[in-house]
Amino acid sequence: MTSTETPAVRVAMIGHAFMGAAHSQAWRTAGHVAELPLRPEMTLLVGRRAGAAAAAADRLGWQDSTDDWRAAIARDDIDVVDICTPGDTHAEMAIAALEGGKHVLCEKPLANSVPEAEAMVAAARNAPGRQAMVGFTYRRTPAVALAREMVAGGVLGSVRQVRAQYLQDWLADEEAPLTWRLDRERAGSGALGDIGAHIIDAVEYVTGQRLTGVSGLTETFVKQRPLAAAADGGVGASIGGTAGEGYGPVTVDDAALFFGRLDSGAIASFEASRFALGRKNAMRFEINGSQGSVAFDFESSNVLEHYDGRRPAAEAGFSRILVTEPTHPYLSSWWPPGHGLGYEHGFTHQVIDLVRAIASGEPARPTFADGLHVQRVLAAIEASSDADSSWQSIPDEQER
Amino acid sequence: MTSTETPAVRVAMIGHAFMGAAHSQAWRTAGHVAELPLRPEMTLLVGRRAGAAAAAADRLGWQDSTDDWRAAIARDDIDVVDICTPGDTHAEMAIAALEGGKHVLCEKPLANSVPEAEAMVAAARNAPGRQAMVGFTYRRTPAVALAREMVAGGVLGSVRQVRAQYLQDWLADEEAPLTWRLDRERAGSGALGDIGAHIIDAVEYVTGQRLTGVSGLTETFVKQRPLAAAADGGVGASIGGTAGEGYGPVTVDDAALFFGRLDSGAIASFEASRFALGRKNAMRFEINGSQGSVAFDFESSNVLEHYDGRRPAAEAGFSRILVTEPTHPYLSSWWPPGHGLGYEHGFTHQVIDLVRAIASGEPARPTFADGLHVQRVLAAIEASSDADSSWQSIPDEQER
Amino acid sequence: MTSTETPAVRVAMIGHAFMGAAHSQAWRTAGHVAELPLRPEMTLLVGRRAGAAAAAADRLGWQDSTDDWRAAIARDDIDVVDICTPGDTHAEMAIAALEGGKHVLCEKPLANSVPEAEAMVAAARNAPGRQAMVGFTYRRTPAVALAREMVAGGVLGSVRQVRAQYLQDWLADEEAPLTWRLDRERAGSGALGDIGAHIIDAVEYVTGQRLTGVSGLTETFVKQRPLAAAADGGVGASIGGTAGEGYGPVTVDDAALFFGRLDSGAIASFEASRFALGRKNAMRFEINGSQGSVAFDFESSNVLEHYDGRRPAAEAGFSRILVTEPTHPYLSSWWPPGHGLGYEHGFTHQVIDLVRAIASGEPARPTFADGLHVQRVLAAIEASSDADSSWQSIPDEQER
Amino acid sequence: MTSTETPAVRVAMIGHAFMGAAHSQAWRTAGHVAELPLRPEMTLLVGRRAGAAAAAADRLGWQDSTDDWRAAIARDDIDVVDICTPGDTHAEMAIAALEGGKHVLCEKPLANSVPEAEAMVAAARNAPGRQAMVGFTYRRTPAVALAREMVAGGVLGSVRQVRAQYLQDWLADEEAPLTWRLDRERAGSGALGDIGAHIIDAVEYVTGQRLTGVSGLTETFVKQRPLAAAADGGVGASIGGTAGEGYGPVTVDDAALFFGRLDSGAIASFEASRFALGRKNAMRFEINGSQGSVAFDFESSNVLEHYDGRRPAAEAGFSRILVTEPTHPYLSSWWPPGHGLGYEHGFTHQVIDLVRAIASGEPARPTFADGLHVQRVLAAIEASSDADSSWQSIPDEQER
Repeated sequence: MTSTETPAVRVAMIGHAFMGAAHSQAWRTAGHVAELPLRPEMTLLVGRRAGAAAAAADRLGWQDSTDDWRAAIARDDIDVVDICTPGDTHAEMAIAALEGGKHVLCEKPLANSVPEAEAMVAAARNAPGRQAMVGFTYRRTPAVALAREMVAGGVLGSVRQVRAQYLQDWLADEEAPLTWRLDRERAGSGALGDIGAHIIDAVEYVTGQRLTGVSGLTETFVKQRPLAAAADGGVGASIGGTAGEGYGPVTVDDAALFFGRLDSGAIASFEASRFALGRKNAMRFEINGSQGSVAFDFESSNVLEHYDGRRPAAEAGFSRILVTEPTHPYLSSWWPPGHGLGYEHGFTHQVIDLVRAIASGEPARPTFADGLHVQRVLAAIEASSDADSSWQSIPDEQER
Repeated sequence: MTSTETPAVRVAMIGHAFMGAAHSQAWRTAGHVAELPLRPEMTLLVGRRAGAAAAAADRLGWQDSTDDWRAAIARDDIDVVDICTPGDTHAEMAIAALEGGKHVLCEKPLANSVPEAEAMVAAARNAPGRQAMVGFTYRRTPAVALAREMVAGGVLGSVRQVRAQYLQDWLADEEAPLTWRLDRERAGSGALGDIGAHIIDAVEYVTGQRLTGVSGLTETFVKQRPLAAAADGGVGASIGGTAGEGYGPVTVDDAALFFGRLDSGAIASFEASRFALGRKNAMRFEINGSQGSVAFDFESSNVLEHYDGRRPAAEAGFSRILVTEPTHPYLSSWWPPGHGLGYEHGFTHQVIDLVRAIASGEPARPTFADGLHVQRVLAAIEASSDADSSWQSIPDEQER
Repeated sequence: MTSTETPAVRVAMIGHAFMGAAHSQAWRTAGHVAELPLRPEMTLLVGRRAGAAAAAADRLGWQDSTDDWRAAIARDDIDVVDICTPGDTHAEMAIAALEGGKHVLCEKPLANSVPEAEAMVAAARNAPGRQAMVGFTYRRTPAVALAREMVAGGVLGSVRQVRAQYLQDWLADEEAPLTWRLDRERAGSGALGDIGAHIIDAVEYVTGQRLTGVSGLTETFVKQRPLAAAADGGVGASIGGTAGEGYGPVTVDDAALFFGRLDSGAIASFEASRFALGRKNAMRFEINGSQGSVAFDFESSNVLEHYDGRRPAAEAGFSRILVTEPTHPYLSSWWPPGHGLGYEHGFTHQVIDLVRAIASGEPARPTFADGLHVQRVLAAIEASSDADSSWQSIPDEQER
Repeated sequence: MTSTETPAVRVAMIGHAFMGAAHSQAWRTAGHVAELPLRPEMTLLVGRRAGAAAAAADRLGWQDSTDDWRAAIARDDIDVVDICTPGDTHAEMAIAALEGGKHVLCEKPLANSVPEAEAMVAAARNAPGRQAMVGFTYRRTPAVALAREMVAGGVLGSVRQVRAQYLQDWLADEEAPLTWRLDRERAGSGALGDIGAHIIDAVEYVTGQRLTGVSGLTETFVKQRPLAAAADGGVGASIGGTAGEGYGPVTVDDAALFFGRLDSGAIASFEASRFALGRKNAMRFEINGSQGSVAFDFESSNVLEHYDGRRPAAEAGFSRILVTEPTHPYLSSWWPPGHGLGYEHGFTHQVIDLVRAIASGEPARPTFADGLHVQRVLAAIEASSDADSSWQSIPDEQER
C-alpha cells in the first residue's frame, strides 16, 4: 500500500462508459492495495459533453473534468493519459498525448486499422522514456499470468496445440439494438476486434510466441438491428439516428473462426462470438504441450486447470488450481486463499504494473508494438475471410 | 454513484488487519459504484499501537488515526463505528459506541459468549435510531442473496433439507503457528465460531427460518502448535509468548459437525473445518425443497446452481446460473454479465446496505439480535458436544 | 476372458427385479471380459411366481426357472446362491443356502435387523470353505477402489475427516406410490438401510477403518402415500392393498443424518436422503487426510478427485483423475482411457471377484461379518435418533 | 428383453481387436436388455489367423470361427456381416457381403478414400432390402441422441454456431509405437479419419444438416516412431517390420483443425487431436441456436448441458441434464435415474437399432451414403490443407 507521502503520478482519463468505470475503479484502488513507487492521482476526466463529464468525475472520483481532450493533454499537471474511447479515436489521441510527452495507456484493440496502429507505434518510438501501453487486461488475471509462468518455466514442455475461444451472447437476441460496437467506422470490426483480439493477445502472451499465419472466416448472422437512443460511448449507445426510427445495418462481424500457426510451429484454433447463447464472458484457452496442459475459462476466473503429463497416468488428471495463493501472480496484495478476485482486479493490476514501469523506465507490456502485432493478425483474418479462407502470413515484426 | 455534494456519513474503524483491509476497500468503493443517500467519509482508524495505526490509515485511505478507541467513540464527528477486532473486544466496544450514540457495524461472530451478545442486544435496544449490524458478509454475495430471493419467492416450494459446509485447510499443516484465532480467550471458539457461524447465518438467511435445536460434535486434531511472533491482530498474529520459544496449546475446536432442525421442521446438516485439505474457502450450502433445489459454493462465488423440479424430468438438471446479470441482487452497480465479482464485493454491498439503512431508519440486517441467535446456536453445539452429542434446544428469540 | 473349457460354477439367483437384472448382466458378462478360473453358468432363476420367473429366465439368460427357492437351494447342480430379494427374506434364504453347502452372494443391507445378521454370520462361520459375501457393489466402482488403494498406500497421510452423502430424489414427489421399500417390515428401514448402508460401507472400505460410535437423526417427510398396484418385488412394487384404494402409511425414514468416529479417531459426517431434488444417484464421499484428500461422486462415476497436499500450494488443486487407465482397478478388462464404464460394471466386477475367491478359497469381501457391522451401525443410528440424538457406541466386532 | 423363441438373426463378425470386443459385448447383451424382433445369434468370428480367431471366439462368445472371410460371407447361415477391421479392407469386404445378400454393419470411417466409399454406396444401392450401416456409434450415446431430439424439436431455435472437438492424448508421448493407425495405407488418415470423422457425423446428426464446405489444416507433430511388435489388428499392433529394429515414418496427421458451413448457413469449427495431453476421450460439441444451446463431452457421457435462452436471463444457466431418465433415448432398457451407462452401451444400442431395422425394412442410419458424405468431408479437409487452407466445397449428395 502506498503512502500519501509518495510522489504523485497524475492521470487524465478520456471516456467514462464501461471501460472508464473499470479504469476508475483501478486508479482508485491500486495505491491502497499495493506499495507503489508513485501515488496515482485522479486529476482529470475527459468526456465529449461537459455536463456528463463533470457528473461522472464527481461520482467516479476524479478531481476535475473537461470536454476538451486536446486541452487536457496540453496540461502540465498530467503525466498519464488513459484512453477509454472507441477505437476510431485511439490513434489521434494517443499520438497527440505521446507528442505532448505523456505516458499513454490505450484500451484495446490498439486501433481500427494497421496503418493507424503503425503510426501509433512510430509515435511511441519517438517518445523515448514515455510508456505506450495497450490494455489487454486479461494478461493480468492471476490465472492467466500463472499460465504464462508455467509455460515459461517449462512445466508444459514444448507447446504443440492451442485452442482459444471468447464466447459471449449479448447479440443473440435479434432485437438487441445497434450500438457503436456494431459500426465498422467506429469499432473497426465486431467480435473479431472486440473479443478476438483478447484471445490472440492472451495466447501469444501465455505461450511467449507469435502467430505467423492464419486462415479465417467471419460471419454476420443478423444484418439489421433496431436503432437505439444515442448515448455517450457506452455499451448500450446507438450509432446514431434516432431511436424508434427503424433499423440500421450491422457492418461488423458477429463471429469469427480462425486457426493459425505460432512461430514455434505449434497450431492454434480460435473462435470469437457474441452469439454463443449461455456463454456470458467465456474467455477461454487450453494449451497442450509435450509435458502437460493448462486450461482457463474467465467464467471461473480464479481457476487454472493443469494436467501434469509427467505424473504416472494412473495419478494424473486436470488439477483445478485455485489461483488465490499469496505466491500466485498479483495475489500478495489481496485476500487469503480461496477468497477470490473479480473482473476489475485485472485493471487494478494493470495500473500497478504501469505505475511501476513509469518509475523504473522499463516498458510496460503489452506495448503499442504488441498491439500493432495483434492488429496485423486481425487484418490477416479479415483478408483470409475475404479470400476463400486462404492462408495469410503475418508480417514479421521488427521489434517487440 | 454518489456525488461529493451528498451529505457525509463519517466512519471510525477499529482494527486494521485482514478484516480492516476488507472493510477499508468497501468504504473506499461503495460511494463510487452505487448511488448512496450519504457519502462515506473515512474519518478515523483505530489501532492498538499508534504508529502502526497511522501507517495503516495513510495506506488504507483513512484521514486520521489513533490508538485510543474510547476517545474515537467520543468524537462528535463520528457517525459509525466499524469494529474489526477479535471477538473478545466486541461487546465492550459495541456497547460503548451505542451508548455514545453511534451506529455500529460489528464483525462476526457477534461476541465470544451468549451473555456478551445479550448485553450487546440490550444496548442496541436502548439506542433507538442507531444501527447495530453484525457482519455476516456472505449474505451479500449476489448468489447467496439470489438464493434467498428464490426461496422467498416460492421457487423451491417448502424447504425440506439443508446441507451446509464451510471448509478451509489452513490448519492442516501441524506446524502452522498458534495465532489468536486458536485461543479460546480471544476467539471464543475455533472453526465453529469463525466459519461455522457464517453457514448458520447463511442457512437461516436463505431459508428465512431459524434453528430450533442441534446435535453436535467438535474436535481438535492438533493440540499443540508452535508459538509465532506477536503482531497486531492479524490472521498470522501469535497469541503471545515469544516466537521460537516452543509450543503452546490450541484451546479451540479444529472442526465441528452438527445437525439440527429449522422452525418449519426441515432438517439441516452442517460442517465447519479448517482441516479439509484442498478446500480453501468452500463456504457451501444446498437447499432441497419440494419443488426445487439450490446449491452454492463460494469457491465459485459467481454461480448459483438451481434445479427446477417443476420441469419434466427429461429436461431437468442443475442449472449453473452465472449471477452476474444486472437484474441479480447488487449487480446493477457492477460489470456486464459474466464478468464476475470477488470476495471484497460482499463488504462493499454491506456498506451500501448499511448506509442506506442509516438514511432510511430501517434496521440493517443482520442485526445484533440476529447475531445473538447465531451465538445461541454456537453455544448449543458446544453444549451438545460436551453432553454426548445429545440434542440441545435453541431458546426462542423475543425479537428479530 | 474365460474359455468354454474352463470348469463351470453354477448359479441360482433368487429375485428378478432391478437387482436381478443387474446381477444377470454381471453373470452374463464377467466371463467374457475377464479371465476367470471358473466359468459362470446361469443355471436357475427363482421367482415368487412360476410364470413370471420363467419369462424372466428366458429373457435374462438363465437356463431354467422355479418358484421354489428351497428346492433350488437343494439342487446338487447349484454352487452359488445369489439373493436379490427384499431384506426380510435374506436371513432365511442365506442361512438355508449356507447350510446346504452353497456359496452365497446376498444383496445389501445384509438383513433387516442385527439379530438376523448375527444369525447369518453364525451360519457363515459354520460353513467353512463357503463364500458368504454381501453386495456392497460400490466398492467395485474403479474410482472407489482406487480411493482405497490411495489411502492404504499412504497417499493421503492419516485420515482426519470424512464426509459422505447418498442423495436421491425419487420420493420428493409426495404422490410417488407406496412400495415395499417404504414398508419397515420388508425393507427394515428407508433411506438409512437402502442407501445410507452403502456410504457406511464405502467409507469403512476406503479408509480401512470402522465406526466406533454415532449420533443420528432420521426423518419421514411424507407420512402417507398412495397405494399402488402390487408387483413382484421391484422398485415400483406396492406394499399391498389394491391400487387406487387410497393411502397407506410410510413406516420408514425418508432421510437420515448422522456423524460418527472411526477407530483411528477421525470424524465423519453422513447423510442419506431420497428427497434431495435434482440428485439422482449422488453417492459421494470426501476424505481429508494429513497429506491429501480424495472426493468421489457416483454421478460422475469414472472420476476420482485427488488433492495432493504434498505439492507446493501454488501448484496444488483437486485433480480430476479419469479412472479409466488400464492400471486402475478392474480396468484392464475394459476399454481404452477415457471411454468410461457404467453402473452395472460394479456388479460384473463383483462376480469376477467372487468367482476368483471361490477358486482360491480366500474370503470374498465384504463378508457377512462386514455386513453385520454395517447393520450394527444402522441400528445405532436409529437408537440415537430415538434417544435425542445422543451418542451410541458400536459394539466391537470379534472378527472381520 | 428378447425371448429365446424369437427367430434368430445370425451374425458373422470380422476382426476381434478393440472394436471386435466392443461389438461382441453389444451382440451378447442387446437381446437381454431390449425386446427385439429378432434374436441375435453370434454364429461366426473371422480373424486373420485361425488359432487366434478360435481363441477369441471361445472367449467373446462366438459359436464358431474361421480365418477365411470370403468363406464366411458365402455361408447360408449368416444374415449379418459386421466388419471391425482397419479401413483398407472395408470396401472389399462390405461389397462382397452385400453382393452375397448379407446385411452389413461396417466400422467407421466407411473407407480410406472417396472412390472406395462410392463403390460401397453403389453396392448398397444394388442390394435392396439389405442394411448397409456404418458404425458412428456415438450417435447412440443417449445424451447425443437427446441433443438431436432437442434440435429437431425446435428447442434451440435455428442453429447458428457449432464447435466440436475430439481430443485424445495417446500419441503425446513421442516414443509411443508406430501402429497401423499411423500408416496411411491401412488407416487412410490419422486423427482426422479416426476421430475427426466421429465429430463430423455427430454434428451433422445432431443438427440434421450437412457441411457444404470447409477450410482445414492438418499437422504431424512426431514424424518418426519406434517400430513395435506385429500383432493382429489391435490398437497396439505395429505396421510391420520387426520390433526393436528402429523407427519408421508416421504417414498420417496427428491433429486436424477445420471450420466449415452447414447447409443452413450455420458456421462450425472442429478439431481432432491425439496430442491434447490430459484429454482421454473428449468427444465434445456445443451447438448455439437462436433460442438455446446444448453442450456435450463424452468424458461425462451421461450428461447433456442445456441453456434455455427462452428463460429470463436472471434464471438461465447451463443445466446439467443427467441423461439417465427412462424417458431419455435408449434409457428404458437400463437402470434407474442417475445410475449411468458406459462406453459400450452405444454399441449395444447400435445392435438394437440395426436388428429392428432388419425386421422393419427401414434403413438403419447412418447408412453407407451417410458414411460417404463424411468421407467427402475428410477428403475436402485434406485438399484444403494441401491448398493453403483455401475453401473446398463438399459435393452435394444425390441421396441420403
